[in-house]
Amino acid sequence: MSAGYSGLFTSAVSLGPVAERNGPWTVHASEVVYENPWIRVRHDTVTTPSGTEGIYGVVETRPAIGIVALDDENRTYLIGQHRYPHGTYTWEIPEGAGRDHEDLLTGARRELREETGLSAARWTPLGTIQTSNCISDEVAYLFLAEELTVGDPEPDETEELEVRVVPFEDAMAMVRSGAIQDAMSAVALYRTSELLAERA
Amino acid sequence: MSAGYSGLFTSAVSLGPVAERNGPWTVHASEVVYENPWIRVRHDTVTTPSGTEGIYGVVETRPAIGIVALDDENRTYLIGQHRYPHGTYTWEIPEGAGRDHEDLLTGARRELREETGLSAARWTPLGTIQTSNCISDEVAYLFLAEELTVGDPEPDETEELEVRVVPFEDAMAMVRSGAIQDAMSAVALYRTSELLAERA
Repeated sequence: MSAGYSGLFTSAVSLGPVAERNGPWTVHASEVVYENPWIRVRHDTVTTPSGTEGIYGVVETRPAIGIVALDDENRTYLIGQHRYPHGTYTWEIPEGAGRDHEDLLTGARRELREETGLSAARWTPLGTIQTSNCISDEVAYLFLAEELTVGDPEPDETEELEVRVVPFEDAMAMVRSGAIQDAMSAVALYRTSELLAERA
Repeated sequence: MSAGYSGLFTSAVSLGPVAERNGPWTVHASEVVYENPWIRVRHDTVTTPSGTEGIYGVVETRPAIGIVALDDENRTYLIGQHRYPHGTYTWEIPEGAGRDHEDLLTGARRELREETGLSAARWTPLGTIQTSNCISDEVAYLFLAEELTVGDPEPDETEELEVRVVPFEDAMAMVRSGAIQDAMSAVALYRTSELLAERA
């Protein structure tokens, strides 16, 4: 099922008889214990940095992509959706996952179009972030999209999305109040806020 | 091995013959496919919001805890360590995971003491954040710790940590430059920055 996605899962999944190093950890064996089209879970047998025997379970992921879309009136687009793992309704920036053989900016353009219908003439990288680096290898790639053209959204089949356009400062207030709980959204909005202050 | 930790894993893992709802998703079956003392992976058979049949893999986690420790000279404590899932060395605020039958503030005091040797007389909540809400149920609980007393660190056996004390503004510069990549650290430092601005 997921063979076609394996290009994005870069960690070694089978090791020869010689133990391998991962920084101060020694990796003796590595086994894939779960895999679906979005994540792969690896169980490693290790020696810890202090020399004791142990295990490490790693969640391997696709690149995450998040986009702050800012229009000419300094308004930004928020997506409302029910997040299955938490069982809660959330407000976030447009987000998605990278696909095989797709560069990150192409993925960002695709996700923005799918979720909001927008296309953008100006793209600025807002850097990367490790979302949960004790558990997973997920890296989020953050972008600011400007000079927007409005079109029709094309959400994928697993999504039921609500789109709201709010003044950028209202989105920042949602970050500060905790109304926006998503880490990628918070970091991307903070970085946008700093970028806008630099430009001013 | 992990039975003693199950108190923190709150999601249902076996369902009766009646399908259950998770917002606009219908959950037909739920199976634990991997478990270690730190994470549990659940594979659900679902009907998606648009009515198609599908699956959802959820990584269940312990509460994450992150602490910005600020001393009387406006310096903060950063932890350097090799993060196994990424295979990279990172600089972060002191962080850890909550334990069974331990409230979050107690966990924050414990993690701060273990990683830095510090105890703090003043604790301020900095709110929560969902670290990777498409994949896991992880919630990070963020704190500001002040009025610090220095003691000896007590790192746990899996950790090999470096501790650095830097001016708070240097830590913020590391967030802005990307030298700090960890999402919890970035959000906690941004929130501390805003809190300090409010106090001033």
